[in-house]
Amino acid sequence: MAAKPLGEFARIARFFAPLALPGGLKLRDDVALIAGRSGEQYVLKTDAIVEGVHFFADDPPADIARKLLRVNLSDLAAKGAIPVGYLLTMALPKSRDDRWLAAFSRGLAADRRKYRIGLLGGDSVATRGPTMLSLAAIGRIAQGRAILRAGARRGDVVYVSGTLGDAALGLAAAKGQLPRISRVARRHLERRYRLPEPRLGLGRRLTGIAHAAADISDGLVADLGHVCTASGVGAIIETARLPLSAAARSVIAGSSQRIRAALTHGDDYEIVFTAPPSAAGRVVAAARAAGVRVTAVGHIVAGRTVRVLDAKGRWLRLSRAGYRHT
Amino acid sequence: MAAKPLGEFARIARFFAPLALPGGLKLRDDVALIAGRSGEQYVLKTDAIVEGVHFFADDPPADIARKLLRVNLSDLAAKGAIPVGYLLTMALPKSRDDRWLAAFSRGLAADRRKYRIGLLGGDSVATRGPTMLSLAAIGRIAQGRAILRAGARRGDVVYVSGTLGDAALGLAAAKGQLPRISRVARRHLERRYRLPEPRLGLGRRLTGIAHAAADISDGLVADLGHVCTASGVGAIIETARLPLSAAARSVIAGSSQRIRAALTHGDDYEIVFTAPPSAAGRVVAAARAAGVRVTAVGHIVAGRTVRVLDAKGRWLRLSRAGYRHT
Repeated sequence: MAAKPLGEFARIARFFAPLALPGGLKLRDDVALIAGRSGEQYVLKTDAIVEGVHFFADDPPADIARKLLRVNLSDLAAKGAIPVGYLLTMALPKSRDDRWLAAFSRGLAADRRKYRIGLLGGDSVATRGPTMLSLAAIGRIAQGRAILRAGARRGDVVYVSGTLGDAALGLAAAKGQLPRISRVARRHLERRYRLPEPRLGLGRRLTGIAHAAADISDGLVADLGHVCTASGVGAIIETARLPLSAAARSVIAGSSQRIRAALTHGDDYEIVFTAPPSAAGRVVAAARAAGVRVTAVGHIVAGRTVRVLDAKGRWLRLSRAGYRHT
Repeated sequence: MAAKPLGEFARIARFFAPLALPGGLKLRDDVALIAGRSGEQYVLKTDAIVEGVHFFADDPPADIARKLLRVNLSDLAAKGAIPVGYLLTMALPKSRDDRWLAAFSRGLAADRRKYRIGLLGGDSVATRGPTMLSLAAIGRIAQGRAILRAGARRGDVVYVSGTLGDAALGLAAAKGQLPRISRVARRHLERRYRLPEPRLGLGRRLTGIAHAAADISDGLVADLGHVCTASGVGAIIETARLPLSAAARSVIAGSSQRIRAALTHGDDYEIVFTAPPSAAGRVVAAARAAGVRVTAVGHIVAGRTVRVLDAKGRWLRLSRAGYRHT
């Protein structure tokens, strides 16, 4: 009798999408929108992180706090929103004592200054399970200007910000799976895993330029896939164009296995966005003003899926579309 | 070296209040406020519930869903707000299968119709620990009309809605601690524990009448205590005036132990509010219009604490100020 359990997206579509308000965008985007102050909307996002899945139990508490905040800010960034405030829920085992909380709150204080986003409220409960942290972030944006998943059009160029694959390699390094890595490369990659940099400056400047955007939390192929699904289009990505950091390049060194990681692993928290070829100059100008590298990695085509061309022009088969935090 | 760990309120004051935005009300209220549509504010609240603490593992999933939603709606109700939408975060062990989720979502659907509040977004993560559910509710209210904790004044009458102690007795009954209870009484009390009734209709009608309000989630003495602390006043409550349901009365039957439960146990999700004596007629009219009983149980005085007079006019000592969900 036991039916095969539904995947995360099928569960959302079957059980939760029917409950959604119009501002919930059918739960097909990363965020929700509600009316804001005159001429504005609020952009709402909630993301949770769990010990042993998204962070290590003994990670510095300040880094855990900042990662929690930043994975949510990353979604606001992709939509072009400006941070306003957040609600925080903590389920804490007894081992999380006052010293841990003090360090945790110092991480939030540091990012309060950096991103001008403050606490609005929260709740704390005890748990016998692992530490679980949930945050609901609120941003604001001019009415109708949010860059949604659903706007990609055939012929658009697909861009990504920053570099890809660092976080997945940083996690592998932290787990001791990359024994021959240099100390400098290890430090760079682990930092990229521990402390994402939400691209708020870039996202804000892409409003009115980009047709569609999402942050890369599940991997480029998966997150671009969501954009394609919402927009009713397909995409072609070329591995030769993927932006890799020097550290990632030193580890990957042509390994097709690791190229796949850059395509399908999550946690980079860069932005993938699409814009028409005619906007190329404005994209470059926005990136320069934001101080963030952007790279054209492919384009939007007719179809429904994301396909990948390797450096020799052959289609690459990906065994899984993205890194699933299950 | 091990210092005594801080309590929940000291932790909030020390580690989190310094992070709060002005709309966070110094984290001294139940809710936060941010600017809304023209002439309005949004009222924000997040509360989490954990299996084994706030609900039983084998409770009907629809009831768990509705309790999660309603404990948050109860805070909106106490402030006088009208529900808008919510964000949902679920940390689920593998045992929560599609059937469980289907029933859970049916509970949310039922309350969507009842309270006109829909889903805006959410996140789901897997956990090796117990089921943990967090919800961030958004309400709206006319600018400056939210009934905060901080407005109580000396001479105000203290009112409560509905009846008190039912939820604590319902929990005791569900645990088999009240073997001699009648079936009717048991059903009433357990239902009060499992499915709170947020007093939205009453709260909305108390704006402009009540000086201060809070919902009763930690027990009357504790929640009125928060009102007193925020307002810089004290309060005197008379046990003889506590509104008890027929079911609760049948169980309590003059037991001073159980009278204390009505004062100090949580989960009733009624509203405690204060209003000047001159507003008595408007309070009665609001209650009648909302179809909810309200009862004057004491008054606001100079001081800083909540003191309780028993039926013989003696001060009652309470060993703990409220039921703490730790």
